[in-house]
Amino acid sequence: MSRRSSKGRGKPRGKSPQKEGGRRLIVGRRFILEGLAGGTVDQVYVEKAALQKLPELQSAADKAGVPITTTSREELDQRAKGVRHQGVIGSGPPYPYRSVESLLELEAPLLVALDEITDPQNFGAIIRSALVFGADGVLVPRHRSATLSPAVVRASAGATERARIAEVPNLQRTLQMIGEHGLEIVGLAADGDVTIDALGPAPLGRVVVVGSEGKGLRRMVRERCHRIASIPQAGDFDSLNASVATGIALYEASRTR
Amino acid sequence: MSRRSSKGRGKPRGKSPQKEGGRRLIVGRRFILEGLAGGTVDQVYVEKAALQKLPELQSAADKAGVPITTTSREELDQRAKGVRHQGVIGSGPPYPYRSVESLLELEAPLLVALDEITDPQNFGAIIRSALVFGADGVLVPRHRSATLSPAVVRASAGATERARIAEVPNLQRTLQMIGEHGLEIVGLAADGDVTIDALGPAPLGRVVVVGSEGKGLRRMVRERCHRIASIPQAGDFDSLNASVATGIALYEASRTR
Repeated sequence: MSRRSSKGRGKPRGKSPQKEGGRRLIVGRRFILEGLAGGTVDQVYVEKAALQKLPELQSAADKAGVPITTTSREELDQRAKGVRHQGVIGSGPPYPYRSVESLLELEAPLLVALDEITDPQNFGAIIRSALVFGADGVLVPRHRSATLSPAVVRASAGATERARIAEVPNLQRTLQMIGEHGLEIVGLAADGDVTIDALGPAPLGRVVVVGSEGKGLRRMVRERCHRIASIPQAGDFDSLNASVATGIALYEASRTR
Repeated sequence: MSRRSSKGRGKPRGKSPQKEGGRRLIVGRRFILEGLAGGTVDQVYVEKAALQKLPELQSAADKAGVPITTTSREELDQRAKGVRHQGVIGSGPPYPYRSVESLLELEAPLLVALDEITDPQNFGAIIRSALVFGADGVLVPRHRSATLSPAVVRASAGATERARIAEVPNLQRTLQMIGEHGLEIVGLAADGDVTIDALGPAPLGRVVVVGSEGKGLRRMVRERCHRIASIPQAGDFDSLNASVATGIALYEASRTR
């Protein structure tokens, strides 16, 4: 939406609106608290009159060693570039994406790979489920995915600020590499050869691969899956929301760890 | 949004925008097909040039005994009142809400009650999950709930047009009545005394009660629950999206039937 220069530790990224001069903007008090806990927020701006009403913010900032700058409503409005901010803004460096390699170093990791999830609500809800069910990381293709916009941060209830998310240039190649690493790659689809509750444990870890809401798994991605698992259904309506389906798959995967 | 007179089989309702002259408007080809199958659409308007490209619509309308009226793009725009329509519009009487009594006549029904779910995305996704997992009905308080707007129809992937939804004036009183009928009333909350996978069968049926995204179950509603069940979580982030949590609860409930 707006043009910005890139600086800080990330590579230049050309599509997300949550930056201010190359930096990332976090609005919403709860989400700023998550960002302070997760290390994604390193600067907080608060409207002067609001600070004394926010003892929780002050102590979270102290704990994170992050300065709070008091400022005017006008300056906050300007920094927020039209996003509603309730008197508090957090900012930080570009989103700290993890490397796939760092996720593979974890012991028998449970990962979720999102193939072209573009809806911010679904994207956020999935990151939230990943954190709730103890998934160790989320793999997201660099192109054709929702970005970590304020809408996604909100839909995730701030889970984005604590999750380990890796951006991958080519999902099918990454899955190939992960498979060679010994992880079981499970695609989620209605025509699965096994149901998700019958998957059993995966001693070296597992990746659950989720396709897009409309089109499902792309052929080349599906071919990288060792197994295709379905969610057992009782009714005659065969279409679950993508974030609900992923939540159920992660719920089951976390139980069989 | 617009004022309309009430006619047809429903009672007057004053808050939803999907009516045209007291009638309900359905846009989106897939959703019109669901409406024809579910009996909520009794009139279809198609732009003249589009009809021959829609053999599926023609056969669904024939099967439902519903006439298709060909018309101009301008008239469609006017009927759609600003909602995007892709050249096809369906209409029908006010939404055919079921009575709670009719749901209780079913054998050991699985119901879901939504206490103040106001987000259209969540509301639609829950109705969709209800249909997928074979729930027999959805109870929705008449006030402080999302209405069956085009956004909800879309979020439900058209499941609204097939689902059995009952509007209740007072959820806690309805739950009391349902409890006296022998159904087990299970509230969903993080501090549950049992986990959802340990609920076991409910010989006379079960209602899963879901609270609002922000506030959870209201006290008076919670007091009507026989048991409070939680979703086992592995991580240290304790907040699931309401439609994801409901989807998981319905998935488990359908397995233990």
